[in-house]
Amino acid sequence: MISNTGSAAGGVLSDTARLCLHTITTRPWSLAECVRHYAAAGVRGISVWRNCLETTTPSEARRMIADAGLTCVSLVRGGFFTGATAAERQKAIDENRRVLDEAAGVGAPLVVLVCGATPRQSARTNIEQIREGIEAVIGHAAARGVKLSIEPLHPMYADVRSAIVTLRDANDLCEAIGSPHVGVTVDVFHLWWDPALQAEIARCGRAGNLLSFHVCDWKTGMADMLNDRGLMGEGVIDVPAIRGWVEAAGFGGFIEVEIFSNRWWQEDQHRFLDAVVQAYLQHT
Amino acid sequence: MISNTGSAAGGVLSDTARLCLHTITTRPWSLAECVRHYAAAGVRGISVWRNCLETTTPSEARRMIADAGLTCVSLVRGGFFTGATAAERQKAIDENRRVLDEAAGVGAPLVVLVCGATPRQSARTNIEQIREGIEAVIGHAAARGVKLSIEPLHPMYADVRSAIVTLRDANDLCEAIGSPHVGVTVDVFHLWWDPALQAEIARCGRAGNLLSFHVCDWKTGMADMLNDRGLMGEGVIDVPAIRGWVEAAGFGGFIEVEIFSNRWWQEDQHRFLDAVVQAYLQHT
Repeated sequence: MISNTGSAAGGVLSDTARLCLHTITTRPWSLAECVRHYAAAGVRGISVWRNCLETTTPSEARRMIADAGLTCVSLVRGGFFTGATAAERQKAIDENRRVLDEAAGVGAPLVVLVCGATPRQSARTNIEQIREGIEAVIGHAAARGVKLSIEPLHPMYADVRSAIVTLRDANDLCEAIGSPHVGVTVDVFHLWWDPALQAEIARCGRAGNLLSFHVCDWKTGMADMLNDRGLMGEGVIDVPAIRGWVEAAGFGGFIEVEIFSNRWWQEDQHRFLDAVVQAYLQHT
Repeated sequence: MISNTGSAAGGVLSDTARLCLHTITTRPWSLAECVRHYAAAGVRGISVWRNCLETTTPSEARRMIADAGLTCVSLVRGGFFTGATAAERQKAIDENRRVLDEAAGVGAPLVVLVCGATPRQSARTNIEQIREGIEAVIGHAAARGVKLSIEPLHPMYADVRSAIVTLRDANDLCEAIGSPHVGVTVDVFHLWWDPALQAEIARCGRAGNLLSFHVCDWKTGMADMLNDRGLMGEGVIDVPAIRGWVEAAGFGGFIEVEIFSNRWWQEDQHRFLDAVVQAYLQHT
């Protein structure tokens, strides 16, 4: 479905009807604070990071989110399916079943997968183990009514986080698995550099596999490879162009702001939330 | 040609007959120091970075290298062909002609190209400008007897250094240009993460386009995105496997150690050079 507010493909976003935040974006806040302040700022969706569930049960989280009038978009994150031994890989599968239980408890229709990578295993071996891991939990996902979404990560995380590093890889894997319970997530930070991106976004749209869309920005000269992401407009990514491709591929769901930033986490989070909303309206 | 010493595809390197160092690897040393100490350590090839030519003329550099019995493998680096205006791009073309003159003066048969990227230009536009830039200097390269080698860089450098970020992109561009004076460089640091790497190495070997091979290692948790490369064996890259693919593709030339490392540059460079030779024999 294409939302009917502020979502003409590539056009200006005129309101916050499709704006979702990842709780990690405002990491200093508890889930209760996230829920309250997001709703007050006009944010309509929330993607819950699992660290929030260390102090809140899934059912409490679900109630808080519903009471604030927010929609739960995804639980972040499952995955990390690779491992040097079968025992390690089984442990990951068991953990992913718990993640799916939590997602169902929170009311998240989707679990984002950071697929995993084991150093010095070949990309091919890692990808095979990822496929086996995902296939082992599809039945559980179906039973819980939760989808699994493969998120390709930037190749600078290929050593220990994900052997799936391009949208082509994610599409290949998703189509090889061929399950209605498995799709892909497009995150501009990870994928913006790829000359094949537009074609691969169209491909996953055609296949009905495009499940979610994450935005932030890539700053030249990042101080940290993990926690120095930029707000949309602070970096080099043409976010509106990529959003246009995603929408042309038929996606009209939430636009999820996911920013890890030591710099922004040190700021007053109310001021940061205002900046997120402005960046969403002006540079997304 | 396949060298007959220490070069059976994928086998152990039993001597330093194919060992080449980039002068940037021992950045604290002058060209004269590099030449003297490399030769004494059994290194046989040298790739000269242009900063060395700020204090030494190309012909002096050529004489020093020959007197030490070293082979000059490449001049590093040309490229940076993209730009927002035609005037900027013409300036880059003029600069690359000077680089080719310097390469001929030094006796380098090859110029390595870091192709360039202009932020907020699409990958497609950047790649088109790179193609135009290379094509504009092919005649000059042919006249000087110097080849141009397209080096795909890691996608984490796609913002300002290179829109050519996979070996597939480099092979596509090289084949589209279709000149005997243009080929590609395989650097394990930039390319190790790509599931298509083995196939693309075979492809550029078949096409006769595989001109040079760079090694170092990728360390998990790098302190710096540019200057924290590892010595072979310090990181996650299976360098011997990739060397095996390169040799199976018909490449038997120099194996070039190119390391940018604030950590190693702070060490005694004689001790570092010993470590390079050991890492070459044990982990390459």
